[in-house]
Amino acid sequence: MSPTRSSPTGILAGGLGRERLRAAYRGGEMTPVDVVAAVLDRIEARGEDAVWTARVPRAEALAAAAALDLGQIDRLPLFGLPFAVKDNIDVAGLPTTAACPEFGYLPRESAPLVDRLVAAGAILVGKNNLDQFATGLNGTRSPYGVPVNPQVPGLIPGGSSSGSAVAVAAGLVSFSIGTDTAGSGRVPAALTDIVGVKPSIGLVSATGIVPACRSLDCSSVFASSVADGAAVLAVLGGPDVADPWSRRLPVPAGDLPPLALAGLRLGVPSAISGWGTRGEQEAWLTCCARLVDAGVELVPLDLDELLEAGRELYQGAWVAERLSGLEEFLEREPAAVLPVIRTILADGAEVTGAEVFRALSGMHGRRARARALLADVDALLTPTVVETFTVEEMLADPISLNTRLGRFTTFTNLLDLCAVAVPVRPWSVAPFGVSVQAAAGRDEVALRIAAAIEGMAGVSPSGAAPVDGGLELAVVGAHLRGMPLHHELEACEAVFLERTTTAAAYELHALAGPGLGKPGLRRVASGGVPIEVEVYRLPLAEAGRFLAGVPAPLGIGQLELGDGRWVHGFVCEPIGFAGATDVSAYGGWRAFRTAQP
Amino acid sequence: MSPTRSSPTGILAGGLGRERLRAAYRGGEMTPVDVVAAVLDRIEARGEDAVWTARVPRAEALAAAAALDLGQIDRLPLFGLPFAVKDNIDVAGLPTTAACPEFGYLPRESAPLVDRLVAAGAILVGKNNLDQFATGLNGTRSPYGVPVNPQVPGLIPGGSSSGSAVAVAAGLVSFSIGTDTAGSGRVPAALTDIVGVKPSIGLVSATGIVPACRSLDCSSVFASSVADGAAVLAVLGGPDVADPWSRRLPVPAGDLPPLALAGLRLGVPSAISGWGTRGEQEAWLTCCARLVDAGVELVPLDLDELLEAGRELYQGAWVAERLSGLEEFLEREPAAVLPVIRTILADGAEVTGAEVFRALSGMHGRRARARALLADVDALLTPTVVETFTVEEMLADPISLNTRLGRFTTFTNLLDLCAVAVPVRPWSVAPFGVSVQAAAGRDEVALRIAAAIEGMAGVSPSGAAPVDGGLELAVVGAHLRGMPLHHELEACEAVFLERTTTAAAYELHALAGPGLGKPGLRRVASGGVPIEVEVYRLPLAEAGRFLAGVPAPLGIGQLELGDGRWVHGFVCEPIGFAGATDVSAYGGWRAFRTAQP
Repeated sequence: MSPTRSSPTGILAGGLGRERLRAAYRGGEMTPVDVVAAVLDRIEARGEDAVWTARVPRAEALAAAAALDLGQIDRLPLFGLPFAVKDNIDVAGLPTTAACPEFGYLPRESAPLVDRLVAAGAILVGKNNLDQFATGLNGTRSPYGVPVNPQVPGLIPGGSSSGSAVAVAAGLVSFSIGTDTAGSGRVPAALTDIVGVKPSIGLVSATGIVPACRSLDCSSVFASSVADGAAVLAVLGGPDVADPWSRRLPVPAGDLPPLALAGLRLGVPSAISGWGTRGEQEAWLTCCARLVDAGVELVPLDLDELLEAGRELYQGAWVAERLSGLEEFLEREPAAVLPVIRTILADGAEVTGAEVFRALSGMHGRRARARALLADVDALLTPTVVETFTVEEMLADPISLNTRLGRFTTFTNLLDLCAVAVPVRPWSVAPFGVSVQAAAGRDEVALRIAAAIEGMAGVSPSGAAPVDGGLELAVVGAHLRGMPLHHELEACEAVFLERTTTAAAYELHALAGPGLGKPGLRRVASGGVPIEVEVYRLPLAEAGRFLAGVPAPLGIGQLELGDGRWVHGFVCEPIGFAGATDVSAYGGWRAFRTAQP
Repeated sequence: MSPTRSSPTGILAGGLGRERLRAAYRGGEMTPVDVVAAVLDRIEARGEDAVWTARVPRAEALAAAAALDLGQIDRLPLFGLPFAVKDNIDVAGLPTTAACPEFGYLPRESAPLVDRLVAAGAILVGKNNLDQFATGLNGTRSPYGVPVNPQVPGLIPGGSSSGSAVAVAAGLVSFSIGTDTAGSGRVPAALTDIVGVKPSIGLVSATGIVPACRSLDCSSVFASSVADGAAVLAVLGGPDVADPWSRRLPVPAGDLPPLALAGLRLGVPSAISGWGTRGEQEAWLTCCARLVDAGVELVPLDLDELLEAGRELYQGAWVAERLSGLEEFLEREPAAVLPVIRTILADGAEVTGAEVFRALSGMHGRRARARALLADVDALLTPTVVETFTVEEMLADPISLNTRLGRFTTFTNLLDLCAVAVPVRPWSVAPFGVSVQAAAGRDEVALRIAAAIEGMAGVSPSGAAPVDGGLELAVVGAHLRGMPLHHELEACEAVFLERTTTAAAYELHALAGPGLGKPGLRRVASGGVPIEVEVYRLPLAEAGRFLAGVPAPLGIGQLELGDGRWVHGFVCEPIGFAGATDVSAYGGWRAFRTAQP
């Protein structure tokens, strides 16, 4: 008996989220061909919607879908997911225009990130409109028109990745790839109520992408949930020797559970002015209140240094970087460039080399101070945008309103942070979202906090899943919160995940030694009990430092938690149990210590 | 009975090396006052030697020496060591001139690095001459004259840290602090037969130092041995929030044993042309031959990419960085700047901001390719300089000969490497040395390889000392060389240190499991035997990645080696030994495996 097949309308009605499609593919309710055909029908039905600059021919997209073998779905994390890329990203056979037709060229090779996505089973359907040369945050700067905001027609969609965000928000693709220099991967996510993942600089290859500010440009992911964004980033992340700004950074696993909110410390701006008139401030305050209810500690931070850094992007030396890739074209065909972009780039020609080097030194100082500011919290939480505008308003004042959109996004890359923008629309009347920002390399932490906020906001919560990357460490004794060695975890920037117990397969011993000794966990074949532990997430790069401080007969191995998960934790050599006292009856080291006179 | 006190002549005759002075202080044969007085006498006796631009008043230096309390020697790693700093480094109360008197100013505070050295017990005696604005590698570009090369009078001393190198080479101080942008901390070391330690960019604070190229400038250490250089670097290393280019990098411990040469893989230039006429090539070939004899694998590398990178320093965008700190002064007082320096800086004014950004992207690409090239070797070994010149020759052709001095040094900072220059004079007729270069953050590996080469060359070998930093890991089973998991160590950039055995306190078990099982080491109170292990040095930042791959019931703890040292190594939970077979009689996993049918 064959399973019931979904109708084309039914296919799209449930959304194009990854979990849903994979379940439907596995269950035989749909095939990738069904989904791609339905998607193409919907795109064609919309007609000239300013979302696309080029599309993959129908036959070609359907053939790619048909070529996918369901037997490979476990091996292909993006199996059968239709996607789009911003039109500053090369796709072999389609023109790259950066929304400037005269600049257009026909690349022979796709950007490596496109190849990776296709190799992971995703199906490209086309290329998206953008603010010309990715210069803008509003979505109105393109000769191809303004994509309509599917949440509130009349409002700007945000930019520069306008078409990519709308393609996801309008349900035309499962995910899309944008770019983000000043906020182009987050502002349009916030203004269309979807998720925008802006990885650390250098985590994802930028080869085959038209540069905006080369040293700051990031590829970014738009998706309908944090989980989907993480799954795509897990495919994209990794070094690329052809990309000068590529770096070796931890690649987040694609299937991570949200962090527990209780106990998290999130920095928030100590003051925010200039709120818009569409309920943005109320949404922000509601979000903050719900986080506090959930046990998050909100730490007000003075963000002046960050905001000043952000202002340098469009008013300082970096305009010369924006110019550096376009100088030749601009001289040859000035009329092909939109007047507003020409105005911005003109300032870049005035910048001297010596000024750039002074600005670089200054910004490096700002980076160090920002790192120091954020060292005390698990992440920074800000509104993604504090106000939005109609298309009409934007066109009437295109430069200063654009700048206002980027208040909490332009500093991010200059200060070497990563960010995840997540909608909290249930608390807002207009599109609105918040951004979790963290130091470069902490993408996974930012994603997992964003997932927790998304879950709290009731927007497609991602289910808890086994952790398959990084190092989760269960501590049992002096490293517990409030105990003498807890500072070692803090020094390693460990993130508290949960308080729980081991499986009922352990004994807890007080090892022989001065005072009350040290605890030793001993896994036993029978007669074990659950022992209280706290689980922390240790950045891989810090685990060595932590391990170096662990004295014999202890070591770091693995232990089983009450729910059957295995995490890293303290183990003890057999010889260590000589002369030890079994204190398992206390159920944990804290209880044992408290009970001592 | 009081110990015999040394005469002033005797004091200096034995050199001012750290081990010697500390032993003499402990033994009561000398006091810091004796040493400082003898040093000051010698300096005064030399008269105007162009080594100094300013000196600490005699009474002040003697008072600092007298204030040192011998009871504190264990706490003060630089107790009683006289030192000097290059005159582009601020010392409160002494003018900073950068060898341009008109540029001079009187700083109110010392550079933090000076404070650190003094706090560690070192005694400042004065400030050293340099190539003006640290722009030069030859030592002839100063209005204060040319310091005489103590090895071969008539030859240039090298620069820009000319006076600092000569102060050490002439036995006037125990160590000195220079700076190094293009090789200024290594070329004069090579040309005066001393050690020059050029740390990773950002490892040592550059606050309070007159910038040359701010993004590339490093403080550097001149000393008479690698061990002394390492001891000073251990005091200097660490983050400084006031320094925009400061980074969090591993600080090498001050007292590390040389690495074992056998088994090391060192990259060497596949071709070197343009050798000098003073025996440089013969010295290089002898050094290479001796290394091969000692079991080093020399890997010829094509260094074209690195050499091209180096050429950008004086011929490209970075001249604008050199200009960026001096622009204002140069406009105000052009006549105060030496003509050769003015000529160099003039090019910087022609560089546009856009050009700088293009150059930065290009150089980041070069950095990635250099990292990839060096990933396959433990370090790069090059001559420090391939030729040298007389002062007369240099003055006759001051720009092009200067460039030739920097062939193997100018690329180092641009490509984000660290380096240690070490003399191999016993094999040369003129001053000559080699440089060990490695990726940023691998300062400790570079120092330990340099120490091994120094020991081989018979130049004050440093004694083996306990490792008190980082993570040394003993492996016992599948991670041994040639075995299935050895690649995990390679992926972590582990450095092979030695093949040895555990203490006679262990049993080796084949754990229950498929095939031949996994080995489990068990420490026992009696009846243990020595088990074969290989010890590797794991970068702390990589240890977490390695640990993440260790499966239960194994963990990483500590184990005792045959000579009583404790290192990290594999341990096994008690439950893991259930059903295991004791194979201790084989003495090691390799022998056990070989003996199986």
